[in-house]
Amino acid sequence: MMPFPTKVQIKEVGPRDGLQNEKAFIETADKIALIDTLSGTGLDYIEVTSFVHPKWIPQLADAVDVLQNIKRHKDITYAALVPNSKGLERALAAGVDEVSVFMSASEGHNKANINKSIDDTFPILQEVVEGALAAGKSVRGYISTVIACPHDGYTNPEQVVYVAEKLFAMGVSEVSLGDTIGVGVPTQVDALLTEMLKQFRPEQLAMHFHDTRGTAIANIVTSLQHGITKFDSAIGGLGGCPYAKGASGNVATEDLLYLLHEMGIETGVDLEKIKQAALRMENLLGKQLSSKLVAVARGEES
Amino acid sequence: MMPFPTKVQIKEVGPRDGLQNEKAFIETADKIALIDTLSGTGLDYIEVTSFVHPKWIPQLADAVDVLQNIKRHKDITYAALVPNSKGLERALAAGVDEVSVFMSASEGHNKANINKSIDDTFPILQEVVEGALAAGKSVRGYISTVIACPHDGYTNPEQVVYVAEKLFAMGVSEVSLGDTIGVGVPTQVDALLTEMLKQFRPEQLAMHFHDTRGTAIANIVTSLQHGITKFDSAIGGLGGCPYAKGASGNVATEDLLYLLHEMGIETGVDLEKIKQAALRMENLLGKQLSSKLVAVARGEES
Repeated sequence: MMPFPTKVQIKEVGPRDGLQNEKAFIETADKIALIDTLSGTGLDYIEVTSFVHPKWIPQLADAVDVLQNIKRHKDITYAALVPNSKGLERALAAGVDEVSVFMSASEGHNKANINKSIDDTFPILQEVVEGALAAGKSVRGYISTVIACPHDGYTNPEQVVYVAEKLFAMGVSEVSLGDTIGVGVPTQVDALLTEMLKQFRPEQLAMHFHDTRGTAIANIVTSLQHGITKFDSAIGGLGGCPYAKGASGNVATEDLLYLLHEMGIETGVDLEKIKQAALRMENLLGKQLSSKLVAVARGEES
Repeated sequence: MMPFPTKVQIKEVGPRDGLQNEKAFIETADKIALIDTLSGTGLDYIEVTSFVHPKWIPQLADAVDVLQNIKRHKDITYAALVPNSKGLERALAAGVDEVSVFMSASEGHNKANINKSIDDTFPILQEVVEGALAAGKSVRGYISTVIACPHDGYTNPEQVVYVAEKLFAMGVSEVSLGDTIGVGVPTQVDALLTEMLKQFRPEQLAMHFHDTRGTAIANIVTSLQHGITKFDSAIGGLGGCPYAKGASGNVATEDLLYLLHEMGIETGVDLEKIKQAALRMENLLGKQLSSKLVAVARGEES
């Protein structure tokens, strides 16, 4: 185990990975207001929307509008999820800074999510990556179900290495490893990262934990011990779990910031501003979010 | 860091540390039913009530009734919190198996909670410990605010060592270290345990984490890395935080069991039975508890 890093980058995925799980449509203006608020918190990376077909994610049907109407800060990367060449065209036209492609480490989830086998998914992503790179955009690769799959059970770390190698070979600059269903524990994260770091450098990897079973923060600490310095999180812990209604989603940005700052790890992000934005998000959605820090703030105010 | 232990003991404190924070009185029969259910889950230690004066904790005014009417299992230790000699008399008369005494590592919290300085508290606890030992009962010592105090800020680990030494000198068999306000992070737990383990063996210590800011599970993993094998938790995550209404309380027993079992660490406790008991507790209290596993179970049932 190495000493903890002194600086960590937070990749805010709330506007995309968080909101895509909300049933009731959120007004485009409210999405833009959220992203504009996030742009003033010190974050330097925000995944703002998804160009997956609106048939699959109606909540993010306004992707172009959102991307075109947010106030851009020059030091912030505004990224969007892109499933295919058609989506890439729209994303590039709307002025995306970075493109995220995605697939799963497990056949069952990949099939359920993308309707293709893992090996049949690579050519589709290859096309997106080539197109994005040709347009001068960097590409991030999400790998889902890196710990376990709702269909196939535990994922073999070697399968994650296999998918990551293919993505890097395409020209992806970073891979984000997702515990999509939020089942992982530190020993599993340790096994995964031990295997991954035989092939890749810590800077090539980001970790993406869901807090469905309360283990996200512990898994992040284990990842820090492996030298990982990039983490995805969502303001308020937005996101939910498609497999259990009402269960927690992404690890909350403010809970992650609390952990890191108390550990003496810099992020450049203002915890207080994030907390206030999360409280406003609760009001907008009309429900309590799962973030612990928001619960404390709510209690202090009452 | 040592390898993770293979077996851990859970000390269930929900009926005491959990329920004492509930405002609305819970019927004695319901408390007894809860404890009887817990007795069938594989737990071998349950803190069932408190003999603090009912003026301070009206919720547990029925301590004698509870202790006398639960169905005792011979392999389970039924413990109760005892503040002074008067409380000890009642606890012994009611047939308690083990006595817990308590104080804080910080002057501010000790003063607020016990209305005495730390040094003036020792003689009172000494009397309780002597009385309990004379009656053939073992004694557990709680030390509160081991990471930080709501009045005094961060706690110096040396102050925790000082209080623990005094308690062990009295004849306490185990000390439970409480992050009472749930602010701790792994680096702080690491610093505390590094200091404590210079003086004491891991078997002499239990850790008692509140999940107020979502760090309890991570702190438990850090404690496991130090060889700690005893953890306090409360079914459902009962407990709340007196400093922030609605915030999370004790780490939930079922969330802790999930972590440990997935890490391959034995507890002897049936996670499914604990989860079912927590769901019934939610119905009884008429509100959602903060446990992540309960949220998943709720979602799967809906």
